[in-house]
Amino acid sequence: MIRVGIMGYGNLGRGIECALKQNQDMELVAVFTRRDPSTVTILTDGVKVYHADEASKMKDEIDVLILCGGSATDLPEQTKEYTKYFNVVDSFDTHARIPEHFANVDEVAKANGNIAIISAGWDPGMFSLNRLYASAVLPQGKDYTFWGKGVSQGHSDAIRRIEGVADAKQYTVPVDAALDAVRSGSNPDLTTREKHTRECFVVAKEGADLAKIEAEIKNMPNYFADYDTTVTFITAEELKRDHSGIPHGGFVIRSGNTGWNEENKHIIEYSLKLDSNPEFTASVIVAYARAAYRMKQEGATGCKTVFDIAPAYMSALSGEELRKSML
Amino acid sequence: MIRVGIMGYGNLGRGIECALKQNQDMELVAVFTRRDPSTVTILTDGVKVYHADEASKMKDEIDVLILCGGSATDLPEQTKEYTKYFNVVDSFDTHARIPEHFANVDEVAKANGNIAIISAGWDPGMFSLNRLYASAVLPQGKDYTFWGKGVSQGHSDAIRRIEGVADAKQYTVPVDAALDAVRSGSNPDLTTREKHTRECFVVAKEGADLAKIEAEIKNMPNYFADYDTTVTFITAEELKRDHSGIPHGGFVIRSGNTGWNEENKHIIEYSLKLDSNPEFTASVIVAYARAAYRMKQEGATGCKTVFDIAPAYMSALSGEELRKSML
Repeated sequence: MIRVGIMGYGNLGRGIECALKQNQDMELVAVFTRRDPSTVTILTDGVKVYHADEASKMKDEIDVLILCGGSATDLPEQTKEYTKYFNVVDSFDTHARIPEHFANVDEVAKANGNIAIISAGWDPGMFSLNRLYASAVLPQGKDYTFWGKGVSQGHSDAIRRIEGVADAKQYTVPVDAALDAVRSGSNPDLTTREKHTRECFVVAKEGADLAKIEAEIKNMPNYFADYDTTVTFITAEELKRDHSGIPHGGFVIRSGNTGWNEENKHIIEYSLKLDSNPEFTASVIVAYARAAYRMKQEGATGCKTVFDIAPAYMSALSGEELRKSML
Repeated sequence: MIRVGIMGYGNLGRGIECALKQNQDMELVAVFTRRDPSTVTILTDGVKVYHADEASKMKDEIDVLILCGGSATDLPEQTKEYTKYFNVVDSFDTHARIPEHFANVDEVAKANGNIAIISAGWDPGMFSLNRLYASAVLPQGKDYTFWGKGVSQGHSDAIRRIEGVADAKQYTVPVDAALDAVRSGSNPDLTTREKHTRECFVVAKEGADLAKIEAEIKNMPNYFADYDTTVTFITAEELKRDHSGIPHGGFVIRSGNTGWNEENKHIIEYSLKLDSNPEFTASVIVAYARAAYRMKQEGATGCKTVFDIAPAYMSALSGEELRKSML
């Protein structure tokens, strides 16, 4: 049994707990929180919730600690810190800061003889893998990543900060015409606006100026100004009824050519359609927790990403079973 | 520069030659053939064609030998034999015999300190990878593989052996309704007949009994009897004009559930749409030739499949570049 701890019990932590239940070779042994542990109720019978400060004392009882904090401020500190004591997996997803995070974590992991897998999830994660495989196989080609249809937490939060907004949910939606153009193999150059639209469902406070809210959303730099954005005002009840899920997904497509004169065209497409973004992310992380455990058993140490991990490490099946059933 | 040799110069061998041209860190150094070398003309200037018997003498001039023989009789012997002298990659695709092939090749590879990557291509190969990744991430779920639309060489050959047939081309076609059912997440149980149809384009010899040919195709056990099969008689000119390509492709879809009560549904889909089956297969093999070279440099030996190879080994980019640009 691979003994797993969860650091942080929000949507992602709960997703990890659910994923562990589906993996018979792994067991949850502890959940850690920065809140008062007595206020946190988890789903698994017989497993205790501890304060985060207690984690390092349990280093010998946990094979892999899964870090479920946010990428903005939590993980840059937490992953470095806990890699001193544990093999860890995180889902650090600030793409631009991955090289820095990798370097920081790698140093600690090597110094302490642990494995730290960073940026596991679906983007970064499964999407990254597909970008790599596709570009290695078709070096003459072009990559496209589309996201959605799905909820962007960051964009929803940005709307909620506007004066007069009580609540909001924002969906990122890939543009069908752009997807079709990519799939045709025409290697189009697509602007930000051509690739995705943004759909906003907003609950306004009583007496708020709706036209002003709408204008403020549509003109918000970085978040909305470069997109075709629609704003729909709904009631709090409608928001709850129709928009309480956290779906997401997207597409990684590579279009490339082969042949002595590049006369043959090929399209590689990978897509995800997810009812629950955090639960799917958690499922990827748990498979990589198995990989972390096994690589450590074989004597490997240091920081790893999905690029560095042979796929077989992620499966509960043996090499022999995999070759027989899946190759 | 990674120095590559090609053993066997048919469609696949030529595809390898074309793929090497697109990879700046690799160079073709020799082509080997069982034919009289003077009768074989290749595309690359300045590279010599040798008889297959000469290969072992060139062991110090070749980093990876790519084996382009057939799976029925060539590769079971060739891969074992050449692994004595070279790191090799093959595309052995008789799924049921992979465990046996692996065991045979592994022994020789270890005894001689070489890396042998077997069953590289797209199925087995990229499709296998996607079956593994998806099932590791979504253990509660179901896998589906569809092939096509594409030319099946084996089925085309089977038709050509029928009395009165001058030439033929067979396409395997996935059934849209089955694909849609799988994508809906309903986890349907699908029969062979429900998943694929078979389209046959046949050139009959003069005076042949067309009705008899059609019946013989449709009732052929294993090949056609379990499928809805259409037979269309065309002229030799039409066959040449409309059916001389070797397209293929297909879909690997996993539908699975997460959540404490498995209440959330997820669909992972990987698809290929290929103008040239042999050239795409060759492109996958060449990326794995790079992996073979690098793993050998790091001291690894033995037989490997796509499951055992960290994705980063396949890319010409460094780990640092990959993390920066693709993660």
